[in-house]
Amino acid sequence: MKLIDKAAIVGGGVIGAGWIARLIENGIDVKVYDPADDAEHKVEAVLKNSRHAYAKLTSAPRRSEGSISFCVSIAEAVADAELIVESVPERLDIKQAVYAEIEAAAATDAIIASSTSGIMPSDLQAKMEHPERLLVGHPFNPVYLLPLVELVGGEKTASVTIERAGEIYHSLGMHPLHVKKEIEAFIADRLLEAIWRESLWLVKDGIATTRDIDDAVRYGFGLRYAQMGVFDTYRVAGGEAGMRHFMEQFGPCLKWPWTKLMDVPEFTDELVDLIAGQSDEQSGYMNIREMERIRDDNLIAILHGLKGNNWGAGKTLARYEQHLMEAANDPA
Amino acid sequence: MKLIDKAAIVGGGVIGAGWIARLIENGIDVKVYDPADDAEHKVEAVLKNSRHAYAKLTSAPRRSEGSISFCVSIAEAVADAELIVESVPERLDIKQAVYAEIEAAAATDAIIASSTSGIMPSDLQAKMEHPERLLVGHPFNPVYLLPLVELVGGEKTASVTIERAGEIYHSLGMHPLHVKKEIEAFIADRLLEAIWRESLWLVKDGIATTRDIDDAVRYGFGLRYAQMGVFDTYRVAGGEAGMRHFMEQFGPCLKWPWTKLMDVPEFTDELVDLIAGQSDEQSGYMNIREMERIRDDNLIAILHGLKGNNWGAGKTLARYEQHLMEAANDPA
Repeated sequence: MKLIDKAAIVGGGVIGAGWIARLIENGIDVKVYDPADDAEHKVEAVLKNSRHAYAKLTSAPRRSEGSISFCVSIAEAVADAELIVESVPERLDIKQAVYAEIEAAAATDAIIASSTSGIMPSDLQAKMEHPERLLVGHPFNPVYLLPLVELVGGEKTASVTIERAGEIYHSLGMHPLHVKKEIEAFIADRLLEAIWRESLWLVKDGIATTRDIDDAVRYGFGLRYAQMGVFDTYRVAGGEAGMRHFMEQFGPCLKWPWTKLMDVPEFTDELVDLIAGQSDEQSGYMNIREMERIRDDNLIAILHGLKGNNWGAGKTLARYEQHLMEAANDPA
Repeated sequence: MKLIDKAAIVGGGVIGAGWIARLIENGIDVKVYDPADDAEHKVEAVLKNSRHAYAKLTSAPRRSEGSISFCVSIAEAVADAELIVESVPERLDIKQAVYAEIEAAAATDAIIASSTSGIMPSDLQAKMEHPERLLVGHPFNPVYLLPLVELVGGEKTASVTIERAGEIYHSLGMHPLHVKKEIEAFIADRLLEAIWRESLWLVKDGIATTRDIDDAVRYGFGLRYAQMGVFDTYRVAGGEAGMRHFMEQFGPCLKWPWTKLMDVPEFTDELVDLIAGQSDEQSGYMNIREMERIRDDNLIAILHGLKGNNWGAGKTLARYEQHLMEAANDPA
């Protein structure tokens, strides 16, 4: 059973296009507004990847793809949408202006979901006429494969909006995570920023190259994080004595003299050059499309592997396939 | 071709036992010294997991297992070892005392590798008679499955020691990463500490539970980190414009007012209780052995998946299997 039939995407960059891919794969018709000249071309490039990926992702009967139409105005895109996804640049003033245009044309019960990765929903909805229907639905790239979507409501968001959005994301094969307290950058990006800061220092101080850091992640703890996250990993590391033992052992290390690394390194041209140069040396032999394909193929392989054990993201995939099977058996 | 026949393990905890598992799987005879009464029992528990794991990991012809003998002294354990792995508690004085005992009995050309996750090798080797043969070889739990081992030399470490150790780890199916500049906690644990600090704040401030944080990792960026690490992920996120574009977009976000989260939260009993309690609620329905089995099965599934694409840790596994095939064809 589909929960919605029509959606609108405002902003067709990498994230907006990823949403389009996930929505049409689930048989939902999508109207898109993006003022850029090459928007259609860029969306097509993402859809080329996503179609390749979905064909490998599941052996369950897939739906017939929803339609895509590109519109000349926000009003045209959102007029009959049940779900409106905003993925425009990360500036509060731009987003607020977009919501004003959306509200002038959309149904009052349409859900408006911002893809922002950092701005608080209370700020986003501050000037809205019907702020109760706005929430943050923060996805992760590639949106058509990664299950996580962080749901964050603002002061004026109705709880029914969060619930309904969660059900919709769920039906799209995602894992909605309700962030119960508003905070800038939510949960995942807080952690990512912490790693990013530390990585910048390591490169800046010549301790490690970008390749060293990538290898330190993907041959080691990245393989754990794909399934267990931070706390379960340490729970296991604590052995029979568990989490309390681990914290007693590990906690004091936080007092080590690492204070310097907690500052933010200055974002100079030299630092940008250093990192961009090392990254070119590391991976410049591939173009971005090749890297995306490799990433997607690996994600699919990992999701399949985890599905075998019915754990983490594999469980999400198993649930999604079951949903597709039920839909195929009951086309009404 | 085996590069060594005999190794010694000093300290048989989770890490030492993981090393034992990896060494005997590769046909190397291991002598173990650990003063704890239940050391043998604990090592056996790890070997039960590792044997289960190795049987699933590879379809290449496995070697006959090396032998294990538990010794009553460090001297007995290290006397004829070519590689001596130290995995004792993380205190400099304890480790230095252990090296003195090792040096009194070991061959002068034996490699001494510390499993320390944070202490600088120059400090470790400061009082040694033959410091040139000591290096840090920092592995990741579970040592018998995760490929990463960080190699760090101190001021007095001979470059031939690093090279030789790298070759040995390589032959054991690992991915040796040479950290070229000494720094406390090396590379991976720096990143892990950054995440850990941020996670503690999120729990302490009631933004997220341990389960929320684990889910934010394993349904999202953890699936990326299992294959691409920090910089390649962002290179792709930058789209055609690549790394420079990404940094120009993303860099300024580091100036957001997150300073508070860069402090270290105070490690109070309340914080330990809060986290241990949430962790129990999240995963207390499984015992640690069950969790280890799930973790290992997932790691194997991920490694298999990545092997299909010959990328990251999958490449390490493919290389290891090739090594096993060659050994089987040339038993001399």
